Amino acid sequence: MKKIVFGHQNPDTDTICSALVYALGQQQLGNEVTPYRLGDLNKETIYVLNYLKMPEPKLLTEVTNEEVVLVDHNEFSQSIKNIKEANIVAVYDHHRVANFETKNPIDITIKPVGCTTTVLYDEFKNEKVTITKEMAVLMVSAIISDTLLFKSPTCTAKDIKVGKDLAQIAELDLNTYGMEMLKAGTDLAEFTTNKLLDLDTKVFEIENNKYEIGQINTVDIKEVQAQRNEELIEKITKRVVDNKLGAFIFIITDIVNSDSIAYVIGELANEVAQKFDSQLEGNIIKLPGVVSRKKQVVPFL
Amino acid sequence: MKKIVFGHQNPDTDTICSALVYALGQQQLGNEVTPYRLGDLNKETIYVLNYLKMPEPKLLTEVTNEEVVLVDHNEFSQSIKNIKEANIVAVYDHHRVANFETKNPIDITIKPVGCTTTVLYDEFKNEKVTITKEMAVLMVSAIISDTLLFKSPTCTAKDIKVGKDLAQIAELDLNTYGMEMLKAGTDLAEFTTNKLLDLDTKVFEIENNKYEIGQINTVDIKEVQAQRNEELIEKITKRVVDNKLGAFIFIITDIVNSDSIAYVIGELANEVAQKFDSQLEGNIIKLPGVVSRKKQVVPFL
Repeated sequence: MKKIVFGHQNPDTDTICSALVYALGQQQLGNEVTPYRLGDLNKETIYVLNYLKMPEPKLLTEVTNEEVVLVDHNEFSQSIKNIKEANIVAVYDHHRVANFETKNPIDITIKPVGCTTTVLYDEFKNEKVTITKEMAVLMVSAIISDTLLFKSPTCTAKDIKVGKDLAQIAELDLNTYGMEMLKAGTDLAEFTTNKLLDLDTKVFEIENNKYEIGQINTVDIKEVQAQRNEELIEKITKRVVDNKLGAFIFIITDIVNSDSIAYVIGELANEVAQKFDSQLEGNIIKLPGVVSRKKQVVPFL
Repeated sequence: MKKIVFGHQNPDTDTICSALVYALGQQQLGNEVTPYRLGDLNKETIYVLNYLKMPEPKLLTEVTNEEVVLVDHNEFSQSIKNIKEANIVAVYDHHRVANFETKNPIDITIKPVGCTTTVLYDEFKNEKVTITKEMAVLMVSAIISDTLLFKSPTCTAKDIKVGKDLAQIAELDLNTYGMEMLKAGTDLAEFTTNKLLDLDTKVFEIENNKYEIGQINTVDIKEVQAQRNEELIEKITKRVVDNKLGAFIFIITDIVNSDSIAYVIGELANEVAQKFDSQLEGNIIKLPGVVSRKKQVVPFL
C-alpha cells in the first residue's frame, strides 16, 4: 500500500521539513514514503529549499486509501479536509492532542519540545538512521523557525542540544543562517491582506467556541500596522462572520525584540483580551514578551 | 508537585504492572512517582504481586492537583471520574486514541503492540533505566496477560522479543510461570454470575445499535457452562432489557486451547451469529480460534 506523509494546512517550515526528512529517513530504512504539502509554502520555507536546491513537495488535496503519517499536527481541524476517512498509521508531533481519534492502535510519538524535527531526531537515533547533511539542514531550519532561534518559550534544552548537533552536521553557522532564514520569512510585501490571514492560521475549537489564530513574523510591527491597519480590521471582521468565529486573533510578532501585538475581532474579543489581562485599543491588544501561539496564547483560551 | 501514575478502571495485569514499573523506573532516575489503582485487582494480578511479595498500589478515587501519568489507556471514559480536571503530563499506551485531549503539548508514546510494558521497555532503554528482576517480572507478566502467552492476534514480534528478554532477567520459565499466572485468573468460583458479567465488559455502539461484550478466561469452558448455563441466560437476558441492548455477547475463552464460545442474547442475536458464519444453539455460538475481543469480535460487528 502507498504510504504518504504530510504536516498541517498553511504549512510552515517545521511542517514541510518534517515531512521531507521523515521520508528521507524512511528511504534509508528501505521504505518508500511520499512527502506532501497541504498548501503554498511560505518564504522562509522557500529560503530553506532554495538553500538546498531541493524541489518542494507536491500538493495534496485529499487522501484516498494510502497509509498516512501525520507530522507536526494531530487536530483534524488543522489537517486535510477528508482526514476522517484516512488510514492514519503514525503521528510525530509536538502539539497538544485534541479533535483527534483513531480506529485502531497506531504509532504516536508526541513530545513537549519546540519542534517536530527534534522528535524525529530521537526517532532516527533509535532506528539507526544516519542524519545526512541535507537532512540536518532541513531539521535545524525547522528548529530555528519554530523556536525563533532558541528564543521562544517553547524552546527546550533538548531543542538547543539537538539544534547545535544538527548545525555541525549541516556545516552552517546558526546565527548567520538562522537570522537570514527568519528574515526571509518576514518579507510579506507581495501578499494581499487576505493571504496574510491564511499564511499561518490554525483553527481551534475550545469550549464549543471556534477560534482562528493567525501569526506572522516581522522585524517592524509598526510598519505592518501603518500599511495594513484598516484592511486588516475589514478582512478579519469578514472572516469572523463568514466562518462563524467566536474571535479571530491575528498575532504580529517582532522576531528581533521577541514581542507581539494581536488584532482580536469577534463577539468574544473582550473576553479574549481579559484572558491576557489586557484591554482592546482599536481591536488590538499588546502581548509583551509573547512569541508562541502554542504556549503563550492557546492555553489562556 | 506530586506526581502519580495509574491505568484504567477495572484494572487488569497490564494496567497495574505498568503503573508499578513506571514508578520504579522513575525512582531510578531520581523522580518520585506514586502508582495507584482505580479498582479491585483481579486474581491474575494478585498472583503476580504475591509472586513478588509486593503490596498492591493504593486505591485512587479522584485526582486533585497532581501531575498525572496515564498508562494502558487514554480514553477519558475508561479513566478516573474527574480526569477532565487532571493535569496530565504523559501517556504510555497501546490502544486507539479517542475521547482524549490535553490543553498543552505533553509526552505521549503509543505503539501498536500487544502490551503497555512493551512500550515502557523501549522507554527504559532510551532513558538508560536498568530493568531489575522485580521490574522484569512485572513487565513480562503484563505481556503474558495481554497476549495470552503470545497466542492472541494482538501479539506482535516485538512483544515476543521483549517478553523473552524479560523472562531471562526475571529468571522464570515463560510457559510454566505463564500458565500458572493465567490459570490463577480463571478462578472465578467466588464470583456471582452478575459479577462475571461486569468483570471485563465494554460497551460498543455500532451502527446505532448498542452492544455489551464481556469476556472471561477459563481452562474448562464446559465446567463454566455446567455450573452457570441457566443463570447466565437469565442474567444476560435481564441486562439486554435493562440496558436496551441489541445484543449482549459473553465470550468464554479457553486459554489452553485458544478457543471460545459466546452467549449471544438480544434481538440482534441471529444477525450476530451470521456475522461469525455460525448458528445459535441454545443462545450459544462457537468461536473456534477466537481469543481477542478487539481483533476477532468487534471488527465483525
